[in-house]
Parts: sequence; C-alpha cells; structure tokens
Amino acid sequence: MKVADRHYRTIWPGEDGRSVEIIDQRWLPHDFRIERIDNVPGIATAIRDMWVRGAPLIGVTAAYGVAIQMADDPSDEALDAVWETLHETRPTAINLRWALDEMRRVLRPLPLGQRAAAAFRRAGEIADEDVGLNRNIGVNGLAIIKEIAAGKKPGEPVNILTHCNAGWLATVDYGTATAPIYLAVEEGIPVHVYVDETRPRNQGAQLTAWEMAGHGVPHTLIVDNAGGHLMQRGEIDMVIVGTDRTTANGDVCNKIGTYLKALAAHDNGVPFYVGLPSPTIDWTVGDGLKEIPIEQRSGDEVSFVWGKTASGEIAQVRVSPETTGAANPAFDVTPARLVTGLITERGVAKASREGLRALFPERGRR
Amino acid sequence: MKVADRHYRTIWPGEDGRSVEIIDQRWLPHDFRIERIDNVPGIATAIRDMWVRGAPLIGVTAAYGVAIQMADDPSDEALDAVWETLHETRPTAINLRWALDEMRRVLRPLPLGQRAAAAFRRAGEIADEDVGLNRNIGVNGLAIIKEIAAGKKPGEPVNILTHCNAGWLATVDYGTATAPIYLAVEEGIPVHVYVDETRPRNQGAQLTAWEMAGHGVPHTLIVDNAGGHLMQRGEIDMVIVGTDRTTANGDVCNKIGTYLKALAAHDNGVPFYVGLPSPTIDWTVGDGLKEIPIEQRSGDEVSFVWGKTASGEIAQVRVSPETTGAANPAFDVTPARLVTGLITERGVAKASREGLRALFPERGRR
Repeated sequence: MKVADRHYRTIWPGEDGRSVEIIDQRWLPHDFRIERIDNVPGIATAIRDMWVRGAPLIGVTAAYGVAIQMADDPSDEALDAVWETLHETRPTAINLRWALDEMRRVLRPLPLGQRAAAAFRRAGEIADEDVGLNRNIGVNGLAIIKEIAAGKKPGEPVNILTHCNAGWLATVDYGTATAPIYLAVEEGIPVHVYVDETRPRNQGAQLTAWEMAGHGVPHTLIVDNAGGHLMQRGEIDMVIVGTDRTTANGDVCNKIGTYLKALAAHDNGVPFYVGLPSPTIDWTVGDGLKEIPIEQRSGDEVSFVWGKTASGEIAQVRVSPETTGAANPAFDVTPARLVTGLITERGVAKASREGLRALFPERGRR
Repeated sequence: MKVADRHYRTIWPGEDGRSVEIIDQRWLPHDFRIERIDNVPGIATAIRDMWVRGAPLIGVTAAYGVAIQMADDPSDEALDAVWETLHETRPTAINLRWALDEMRRVLRPLPLGQRAAAAFRRAGEIADEDVGLNRNIGVNGLAIIKEIAAGKKPGEPVNILTHCNAGWLATVDYGTATAPIYLAVEEGIPVHVYVDETRPRNQGAQLTAWEMAGHGVPHTLIVDNAGGHLMQRGEIDMVIVGTDRTTANGDVCNKIGTYLKALAAHDNGVPFYVGLPSPTIDWTVGDGLKEIPIEQRSGDEVSFVWGKTASGEIAQVRVSPETTGAANPAFDVTPARLVTGLITERGVAKASREGLRALFPERGRR
C-alpha cells in the first residue's frame, strides 16, 4: 500500500539478485526505515527481533532467507543449515515452517547452479500468493462494505472499527482485515476507520494508524475502552478484525480485547466480521475456549509504554508502581455465536462448522 | 488507607489551624508528595490542576479553602469572593458547589470572630461524613464479598475486577468501589484485585494500583482488553466499579470502558456491582443512554502516555503517528439491565427505578 504517495510492499527482492529489502517495523510510526539484508544471520535477526512481524510476512522473509543462502552457497548442507537457522527464530510460527519446507521441496531436486535463481523465483511467488489471497479477502469483504454504503446518504462514510494490526504490514500487501478497506478506497467508496490502540503493544496506534495515514485512509485513533460507547451511539457500521487461529467451529482466536468488541457489536446489532486467509483455520480444533492455550507474555509489556519523547528519541516510560505485578494474556477467543461472518479468500462463511464446510468441502470433515 | 504502614486520608487540617495538607496526586504512583496549602489561590490551583481529584475530595478541599479564607478574612465579602473563586475551578463539579453552598449557609449567620473555627469544624465534618458514607458502602458490599468467599476453599481469594479509580484517593478515605475491598481486608477475608489500567488517563495503573500496593492488598495490573478473557476463564468472581452519575432508572455513567466490562460480566455470569454514595444518583434523569451528554476530552490524552523514564524523570511519549487524530469520549453508560446491584450507603439496590425507590423512598417519586 502507499506510504506518502509511493507504493510499497513490506518486502521485495534487492536489485542485485542476492539480497532482500524490508521495512524495519520496529521504528514505526515514528521512523520509516528500509533495510537491505544480504546474509542469513541478518534475516534471522530481522525475524527474531521483529523487524518484520505477522505470520504471512515472516514466512515470506524466511523464503527470501533461503534464497540468499542459495546465492552464497547452494549446497544441500547449506540448504539444511538455513532451514535450521531460520526455523529456530520463531519456532511456533506455522507459516515460517511451511515456507522453509516449501523452499527445500522446490530446491532439493535442482542442480546447484539453478538453485539461487529458482529460490528467488519461488520466494517471489510465495509473496505474490499472499498478496493474491489478501486481495480475494478484500474482494469478498468489499461486497459487504458496498452493501452498507448503499444504505448511507451520498458521501457519508462507512464507519469501520478494527482492532490490532491485521494490515498490510502483517502481510506482504493489503493485509487481511484491512484488504476490504483498501479495496473500498480504490473504488472510491467513502470509509472512515476507527483504530483501537490495542494495548499492551499498541499495534493499532503504532502500525494500523500509520498504514491508514500513509495510504490516505480517513481514520481516528481511539482507546480500546471507547469502541462499545461508539457502537451504542451508532457511530460504527461494522467491525473487521484479523485472527491468529480460527477453529473448525468458527471460534476466533485473536489479539486480547477482540472478544469485548464482539460483545459490544452483538449488543448493538453491529455486524462483526473476521478477515482470514484459510491457512489460519485450524481444522483440528473445535471449541476454541476449551482447546486453545493462550500465550501469557511478560507483564513488562503492560507496565511500560514505548513512544517518542519530546526531544525525538524512542524511549519507554513506566506507567504503574514498581511493586505492582501485571498479567498479560496475549489473545482471547471470540465464540462463533458473536461472529457475523468469516471473510475468506473463497467467500464469506458463517462462523460455524457447517458454514466453513460449505466453503472448504475438502477440509470440513472430521 | 495505608501508605507504607501509616494511615493517611487524602486531606487533613494543618496543625496551625489555618492551613490544610493534601496528597498531591499528580506525581502518583512515582512520587508520594504531601503539600501544605495556607491560601485560597493555592487551593484553587490544587483543584483546577488536579492535585486532588474525585468528586467527594474536590468538595472537601473547597470546604477547607473557605475555612482558610475565614482564618485570613472572615468578612461577608471575603466569604462571597472565595465561593466565586473556588466555584470557577471546576464549574461542573456538583460536590464542589454543594460544599461551597453548605459552608456559606453555616458561616453567614455567625459573628465574624467565630467564623474561622466554625469553618474548620464544618469542613472536618464534611470530610468525616464522606468517610462515613463510604464506610457504609463498604459494609454493604462486604456482605456480598463474604457470600462469595463462603463458596471458596479456605484461603482461596475472592477475585475482584475494578476499572478506573473509585478508590480512597478519589474520596477522603475508603473510596466508593474500593470500600468493600478494604473492609474485606480488615476482616481478614482473602481478596485479590485485578486492576484495569484504564486508558487513556491510566487511573487504574497509576492510582488504584498504588492504593492497593500501599495498603498491602494483593493485586494484578491488566490492560483494559484483558478482563473479558479472564471472565471467560472463571478468574473473576465479581466486578465493582464506581460511577460519576447513576440515573433514576439505574443506568450507570462511569469511566469509558465500563460498559465493555459489564457486557463481559453478563456474558459470563459474573456479578457486576457499582459502589455509589446516593448523592451521585441523578433523580432527574431516566434513560442514561439518551439523556446523559458524554464529555469529549482532548485527543492528546490518547496520543501521549505519561510515565517515568529509565532515568527517573516524569515524561510523556507519543504512541501514534503525528498525522493521526484521536477521539476521546471520557465516559460511557452501562444500561441497568447489565448491573447486578447498586451498593449504596443504605443497602444494595436493584438497578431499576423500583429498586432505587425502595431504598430512597423520599427521592424515588417522579
């Protein structure tokens, strides 16, 4: 999407054919930094230290990491070694492992002299596949936005609330929850986005707001506490969020606080949608509340807030007493009953076993 | 309540009989500062610049302001002038005006020579009346905590979630929502308090957590997003919040985000209580959603966060892009249907016109 009138993806191959360039997201929204990386330790650092984040983007970054290794040393030993090195950076990331396996599957049968070029080609395809998936989510979500827009007075925007960052920064481009929003903007449909700041890590305030500002999407930052009140006052037409994992029943595991917005949407008759590429559906899990373990992260993420000081440096401040401990569950589960629809690349499914089975008949059996 | 083993109120008369001492709350939780104020401009600054905050405490501070004026100049002109000066500091604060009126009513008939002593006496009584009101809320709420504790295994704490600061810092002592908690601690009933940080102004993280830490109440800070998840997992036994204004129907206007917690409590069968002194009931308003205007505060409260830097200074950091605007509604309305009970100084009322009328028969007619 656009950053100050120029189109960017989050990652793209270097012109020298042996490197990759990325947006270093650690400095957003305060500083827009692009880094060129031409070695595997650099890729490992970028993934481990969250210069890039978001499951799809991590996978693509790893794929380019394999390609960089092949440009340097295309041997089988090097191929196995880069798989190990990169897999260790975020061992639980499902897309990371998938991308590494896929690269090895494609490269292993090839003569050494063809591996580098093939690796950059396949990494580029994986990136394009992500963009295609998200664009299709966008097309399917756009139909919903258009229907709401049809009920508005001319020029009146469709007000959309989103939580956390399921935007283009978490993917290669378009994002998942944000794809319908960007396509609406492309079609000239007036939209206005309420961006939840998304404590404790503030991905809404830092990343989603920056995306919207860069692409010129009208938006307003709010604290996580405010969404329910805005829905009570009729100021939200729809909610779209992303998901880390959706169960075969349609329960949605997403950033902590999503459940509270779903409750408020339900209480006020506001449609609540989830944008998701089908690889995030976990067909092995039924009841999300009972079966999904929730990651407990460091309480320091609650006790300290990062930002830019008056003098322009990036610093953290403590907001609570030093003797006060903090709990920090990172995700919650929104029961399917509160979800209006799951916007996938194939269409919009009801959040139920039957709804998902109808769209994905090849996966929906148990 | 206690601060490091010593009992404090938020305000008390100076030993010289012509001043008052307060806790300067602007520096909490990072710095515990007590200020002695012996002149009316100092009192006006303390109220206007929020050295003291919370409706009951503002009223008492103003009463002592009148007393300080009387010690200096007990004339009718001075009495009218101090009323005007202090009323202007927070013109919408209902307790402020009530306290100023009450002081003038008591002092006006007295000979000049008796006014200073009488003013300090009446200000002290108003402070004591606030403490008495809160203690009675505490006694009535304690019965609820005891009932929950009776269903627990020995030693297992009652887990209570609270939002914002309706603690002793907002009153003279005990607080409103916190009074039942402090009385439970006095009686040796094990409690554990989940403290919502309460964005954007972080009164939970800064004030409620500090209160709990100072008094030795076991507590855990959480982001506002986390409460719903904790309720889904059965980790919250009850919610107690305060209120700025409760309608004759039992709708509860309180700090932004309260409504989301009430929804989650309702969805999970967790009792949701409001601690309130009856003067905060607005008998002239029925439907809180339709009739209560919500204060819109500066977006800077959302875009910037205050805290303590690594080098120990108090500073603010910007968390969002400079081009991103923020909306900041300060309160929301929790409909009576989501409220389990209103804990008042007279007893626990159902959140309904009938429930309130039963406890306050002299006010409940329309």
